[in-house]
Amino acid sequence: MNELIYGYHPVREALRAGKRHITTVFITAGKRSARFTDIRALAKAARVSVHHLSPNEIDSMVGTPGHQGICASSGPFQTTRLDELLQKSHQQDPLILLLDQVVDPQNLGALIRTAYCAGLHGVIITKDRSSGPSPTVSKASAGAMEHISLTRVTNMVTTIKTLKEMGMWVAGLEGRAGQSIYSADLTGPLALVIGGEERGIRTLVKKNCDLLLAIPQAGHIDSLNASVAGGVVMYEAYRQRNLNSIL
Amino acid sequence: MNELIYGYHPVREALRAGKRHITTVFITAGKRSARFTDIRALAKAARVSVHHLSPNEIDSMVGTPGHQGICASSGPFQTTRLDELLQKSHQQDPLILLLDQVVDPQNLGALIRTAYCAGLHGVIITKDRSSGPSPTVSKASAGAMEHISLTRVTNMVTTIKTLKEMGMWVAGLEGRAGQSIYSADLTGPLALVIGGEERGIRTLVKKNCDLLLAIPQAGHIDSLNASVAGGVVMYEAYRQRNLNSIL
Repeated sequence: MNELIYGYHPVREALRAGKRHITTVFITAGKRSARFTDIRALAKAARVSVHHLSPNEIDSMVGTPGHQGICASSGPFQTTRLDELLQKSHQQDPLILLLDQVVDPQNLGALIRTAYCAGLHGVIITKDRSSGPSPTVSKASAGAMEHISLTRVTNMVTTIKTLKEMGMWVAGLEGRAGQSIYSADLTGPLALVIGGEERGIRTLVKKNCDLLLAIPQAGHIDSLNASVAGGVVMYEAYRQRNLNSIL
Repeated sequence: MNELIYGYHPVREALRAGKRHITTVFITAGKRSARFTDIRALAKAARVSVHHLSPNEIDSMVGTPGHQGICASSGPFQTTRLDELLQKSHQQDPLILLLDQVVDPQNLGALIRTAYCAGLHGVIITKDRSSGPSPTVSKASAGAMEHISLTRVTNMVTTIKTLKEMGMWVAGLEGRAGQSIYSADLTGPLALVIGGEERGIRTLVKKNCDLLLAIPQAGHIDSLNASVAGGVVMYEAYRQRNLNSIL
């Protein structure tokens, strides 16, 4: 079934990534700006037709604000099977993000965006009680979702066991853990687990992690928000993995 | 003029911080949970009366969702004058966050929350074209706003000049900068400048920074979102400043 992706970045990145079939691009009639020119050129290169709509028509078509006068009718987002993801990331020292029931599309989008920027090889989410790869998430990811390898699994514990059998270390982010992300070695084949907004990582998932790591806190607030915490730990892994090239 | 702060964390942290005058706490009648017990105890300790309202009454009083059955009538948020902030952080190697026109309350809240968690000494925002210390921002900061020293200034360039005269280094976060945050020394007296969501740091502000730093990007997306980028750089400063205690 087709869905409607919206906003400059999601439509732009979907056209660039070429991973899903885009039927038609819609833009506001008469608009001339660098962004519209860019979208027209990318659509042309991808042989996708561009239709012009009035601002009212595009408003009622998308139904939510934030479309920036751009949307596209597109085939469904193509998820990656777990075995494909593991095959692809079989290379040197894979780094994968596991999200245990992140329900807010804004958080999921921000985490996917950061995963893409920090060079992670893929993101694994649960099928249940999790936000999924919707147009809203693509928008919140600034289109990064269109490029990332995203895998949906039924059982996070089974998935963790599979990853461990393949030789990956599994590290869960947990506010009260005794060890800091800065004292852990984040360079080998690694899966980082981040929990949902309200309850963090579920108990059984936590028990199956090889180690639990905390981001140090100077203040007395419960913890950082999920997308910021994810950003801090993914970039600490990036730093440790690129010491030679960035220092 | 009184304002209405809402949600468990903002009311809790406002009561704990004791920085602004809270007139009355309102909670949903009949609710028994650890959070309500906690709020009642904190209100009692602060000699603030607690009124019970029906869910409908509290809904219409707050007017936005997310209040969690808890709100409080409170005096205005107390900002910190620039000279007070500088006096307070005159100690060993202050670390201050400067936000150049961050307009989204969710982003401002998340940045304040991270600044508090990472132990920054204060946050400076502009009076114009910036989100301010509203109840929405306190909610988005999970109450961290109630503890942080927040300064509003008219002119960011003048403020930067003042900070430099006091011996602080001023580093702006800029996607296209040649130097990485990982190759810079973030340990001395330092002000980190982060720009608004759409346009980043304004040109004249950028020109007055001592150095511009980038977060390395593996992908081809424009950049990280403002609150994640802020989290990554504040925690890199934290890491460099606490090498002995966390490694």
